Amino acid sequence: MTDKTDATGKTTQEIKAERHKARQQKVKEAVDAKIARAQIEKGVLLVLTGNGKGKSTGGFGNITRAVGHGKKAAVVQFIKGNWPCGERTVLEKVGVEFHVMATGFTWETQDREKDTRAALSAWEAAEALLKDDTIDIVLLDELTYMVSYHYIDVERVLNALKNRPPMQHVIITGRACHRAIIEMADTVSEVQPIKHAFENGVKAQLGFDY
Amino acid sequence: MTDKTDATGKTTQEIKAERHKARQQKVKEAVDAKIARAQIEKGVLLVLTGNGKGKSTGGFGNITRAVGHGKKAAVVQFIKGNWPCGERTVLEKVGVEFHVMATGFTWETQDREKDTRAALSAWEAAEALLKDDTIDIVLLDELTYMVSYHYIDVERVLNALKNRPPMQHVIITGRACHRAIIEMADTVSEVQPIKHAFENGVKAQLGFDY
Repeated sequence: MTDKTDATGKTTQEIKAERHKARQQKVKEAVDAKIARAQIEKGVLLVLTGNGKGKSTGGFGNITRAVGHGKKAAVVQFIKGNWPCGERTVLEKVGVEFHVMATGFTWETQDREKDTRAALSAWEAAEALLKDDTIDIVLLDELTYMVSYHYIDVERVLNALKNRPPMQHVIITGRACHRAIIEMADTVSEVQPIKHAFENGVKAQLGFDY
Repeated sequence: MTDKTDATGKTTQEIKAERHKARQQKVKEAVDAKIARAQIEKGVLLVLTGNGKGKSTGGFGNITRAVGHGKKAAVVQFIKGNWPCGERTVLEKVGVEFHVMATGFTWETQDREKDTRAALSAWEAAEALLKDDTIDIVLLDELTYMVSYHYIDVERVLNALKNRPPMQHVIITGRACHRAIIEMADTVSEVQPIKHAFENGVKAQLGFDY
């Protein structure tokens, strides 16, 4: 197979490869400069909010990653349905501490007082973790709803987050995160649903959706 | 402590509790009706795209969940930096099969031909998994870049996805997912960065960002 050559005798393939190398060299310089500028090490407050699929799994994936690097991790699950939790089965085995509110969804219990008590009790477990500097990373899964429903006062949440150990990472998941928590956060991702299988009649499936 | 009462003798607390119950009853009816309509069981193609933090961790969290429910899972990592992977350490221990491209980022290698060969070799591992009906869930982490850079032909990806075992779930992560993959997908979330600590000088930290 012959290949075209230009005036300098280079083949099309060679020219393409050189252009690729030149482009990627520029990308590398930009990336390296950005990395050089980012030198602060600190506990990051990460919020995963929005209506799309991937918030809780994002939090649990981050816990899996942390544990894989020998970090000490803990999870508080708010507003948890009464089904078994696959993430818990795996992560407890590798030493992750779990606290589960486990009263079911608020539209299932339909009991404001009972839900408030359960939320506050789970929040007390969270507060203890947010004071413990041996814990490297804390996931507060579905916490946002507890604030939206006024089960837990937002000032109490902000206060605990602000006074936590400086190197401790915290991840908060759930829809419609309170603005004050978003303001305090270092990193915020909004997970937007472009489409969802459930809307097209696909049921929530064990091991995938829950 | 005395509480206000209304004309019927009910306290404010009692009225609040009743209103809460009535509202939550309506929510429950709406949720139950939606659940009743969703009866299809099938392998879901999930795409986690967009520029925010949480796409790969979302994929790995879903794998952690699946394994916790006894599902058989496999991961192919495309465009992987040369650092150790925390998720892999944990998930290989619980039986997840890993294939890692492991040539580093394309702006590090600056070698188009070498990157293409590595991408195609990783993709062949992916194709084998997408034909294996004993695998319940496959994570194709950072696949989108391989398609964007034309290292892997999008038609080849679509073909393998379309012909996979009908109950197999597949998760694809990465920025700027090709439109044809988004069209084929059942569930698509776009993870949008509202803010990112890195932009404020915080460095990528082991066990949290990687």
